Amino acid sequence: MLDFTFKNATDIRFGKDHIDHELYDVLADFGQNVLLVYGGKSIKKSGLYERVLGLLKGLNVTELAGVEPNPKIASVRAGQQLAKEHQIDVVLAVGGGSVIDAAKVIASAAYYDGDPWDLVLHPSLRFDIDQLPVVDILTLAATGSEMNFGSVISNPDIPQKKGTGGPNSPAVSFLDPTLTYTVPARQTAAGASDIFSHLCEQYFDNNNNEVSKCMIEGLMRTVIKWGPVAVKEPENYEARANLMWAATMALNGIVGAGTLNSWTVHPLEHELSAYYDITHGIGLAILTPRWMEFALNSNTKPLFARFARSVWDQYGYDDMELAENSIRRTHDWLKSLNPEMTLPDVGITDDSNFAAMAKAAVKSGRLATNAYVPVTERDAIRIYQDSMKEFNK
Amino acid sequence: MLDFTFKNATDIRFGKDHIDHELYDVLADFGQNVLLVYGGKSIKKSGLYERVLGLLKGLNVTELAGVEPNPKIASVRAGQQLAKEHQIDVVLAVGGGSVIDAAKVIASAAYYDGDPWDLVLHPSLRFDIDQLPVVDILTLAATGSEMNFGSVISNPDIPQKKGTGGPNSPAVSFLDPTLTYTVPARQTAAGASDIFSHLCEQYFDNNNNEVSKCMIEGLMRTVIKWGPVAVKEPENYEARANLMWAATMALNGIVGAGTLNSWTVHPLEHELSAYYDITHGIGLAILTPRWMEFALNSNTKPLFARFARSVWDQYGYDDMELAENSIRRTHDWLKSLNPEMTLPDVGITDDSNFAAMAKAAVKSGRLATNAYVPVTERDAIRIYQDSMKEFNK
Repeated sequence: MLDFTFKNATDIRFGKDHIDHELYDVLADFGQNVLLVYGGKSIKKSGLYERVLGLLKGLNVTELAGVEPNPKIASVRAGQQLAKEHQIDVVLAVGGGSVIDAAKVIASAAYYDGDPWDLVLHPSLRFDIDQLPVVDILTLAATGSEMNFGSVISNPDIPQKKGTGGPNSPAVSFLDPTLTYTVPARQTAAGASDIFSHLCEQYFDNNNNEVSKCMIEGLMRTVIKWGPVAVKEPENYEARANLMWAATMALNGIVGAGTLNSWTVHPLEHELSAYYDITHGIGLAILTPRWMEFALNSNTKPLFARFARSVWDQYGYDDMELAENSIRRTHDWLKSLNPEMTLPDVGITDDSNFAAMAKAAVKSGRLATNAYVPVTERDAIRIYQDSMKEFNK
Repeated sequence: MLDFTFKNATDIRFGKDHIDHELYDVLADFGQNVLLVYGGKSIKKSGLYERVLGLLKGLNVTELAGVEPNPKIASVRAGQQLAKEHQIDVVLAVGGGSVIDAAKVIASAAYYDGDPWDLVLHPSLRFDIDQLPVVDILTLAATGSEMNFGSVISNPDIPQKKGTGGPNSPAVSFLDPTLTYTVPARQTAAGASDIFSHLCEQYFDNNNNEVSKCMIEGLMRTVIKWGPVAVKEPENYEARANLMWAATMALNGIVGAGTLNSWTVHPLEHELSAYYDITHGIGLAILTPRWMEFALNSNTKPLFARFARSVWDQYGYDDMELAENSIRRTHDWLKSLNPEMTLPDVGITDDSNFAAMAKAAVKSGRLATNAYVPVTERDAIRIYQDSMKEFNK
């Protein structure tokens, strides 16, 4: 097992009964001036926006609305300005991973005088400055941002979509599964695909942390079971709750303790989102089985066979057959969630950007040197090309 | 899934290379006056005592030696006095769970003017006072004390052995698997049995947190695989590392999130240790299969059958047969680790205390009302009686 460090002080309040009783006190402990960060329509439509505003009575609330999926640096810049102007004490993010991701960088940018894109490109800058506490109310089970140190911010002018980290995970995260009842089936599926991808990225890794591998297998089984239930029965509490907690556990650092390799499918997907602004989880669903086909070889066969046995309940003696079977099962499960399983399905019909995307992904993800199975630019192009047509193995 | 809260800010430094480089700075950040708490012979024999003293040069070190397995309130009282006398800034626990358990209560007692047994009996007192930070260097994979809020303290005068909790988990825990190389086979086995019991206590629970259940299954598989390897090959790094991290994960609150029932086998064992001062993990190994036999009924059959399938790789259609099989497998695995699998094997040859022990266990563990399968005093006596003879199912 590789050496690691782990510390994560996020205070989780999981369930139906926390927000109404605890939100005000949690915020007021940090101060009176609250920057409320959110996306837009969905929390207004669901009534959550009004409910939260009602709970914040007595505090000074400044609003930053309109944070986008694949949050843009422009939102962070706007948040930075508001935080400085209104002497904000605490950032309250209400939304999914995008909103929380943006809130974390805003929390640092409040103490930074330059352009916050600097902070995205050079995370070390954030470790030298103070930051505001972030409190969040999660409305989508997907990214794990509610209990980790990371953010993914897009700069469409370049275009670039970049993962970045800071010194603090959210101070307090309210995880109420009922707030995800109104998430549409397509977004629920994308979220489940995102969770599953996070688990794959950490499982297909050349480390020998059996504790992590075994826990990941358990989390994968949970997502495989409950993802489709949540899509079909949006108000099934157990499905929403298990999916929400699995999302948090998949990316709070626990199951990534002592991993060795950098991630592969995420850097490849980030280029798709940067160029075409597609839904992150759907991009992952499309790329994952193609990446698995690419990654399966005689060296990786034993782990794919173990994946087949432990996650997909497959039995047999032929490891290569088991491994192939696990990839087919992964594809079929993802397709059962996401009908859009090729790039043309999401509107990407020509391959003219693939070379530039491959180059950027290999560079930003250090895929040629640090990936579980090294990926060259040519390999990356092939994975994008394979994603143009139906998966057929 | 039941509502829960979770927060655990312990800073984990896992691996071979942390202590020498980081221990001094970690302690000095808290202050100059260190109370070094430890057991006795083992860390002197292994050389760890000298190594730690060497790293503490420049700090003012006060020593509290002789903390026992099943740590006694007398040690806590002595630590309280030293902490006050020497204006201690930080408690450094070097040892296994007993030493860390004692250190946590000492850390509170430093700010308490009465007898620290009050703090054990009334944990709420500890939430109203300050406490010293605890740093630990773990030398035994077993109790999980290195990343949780609990302590178990014995008061042999009464006799009573009581679990208790405080507001803080250790500030920093150094987890170096090589420090467990010198743990004798018997203690290694007892530690693995303790970990497995912690997992059982949280798995056999009427909650429907699938995330926890699935992660526990993974952790059980890890312990089942690596426990016997660590016993047979004391210097097998992977075995020691996986066992150590599994022990921490088994009881840091993660897999216990949203559990419903109070524990059963631990309260029953605490009476064994309180009356006979036997090794906690061996007591658990003896009691666990007998408790399982008691707990298996038509209501619990599905979970035992799932346990058989997911943890013991058993296949079949007859759930009762699978369930019985899982208990037999659990017993046989525990016996492969611990040759002492009856109470007479550990020197308990008469049943004269069983009624008093049963009464105390049922009361302290609220077993008649809160257990997964309710346990009356009569049931508890039967479980103790069953433990007098060879397991035979």
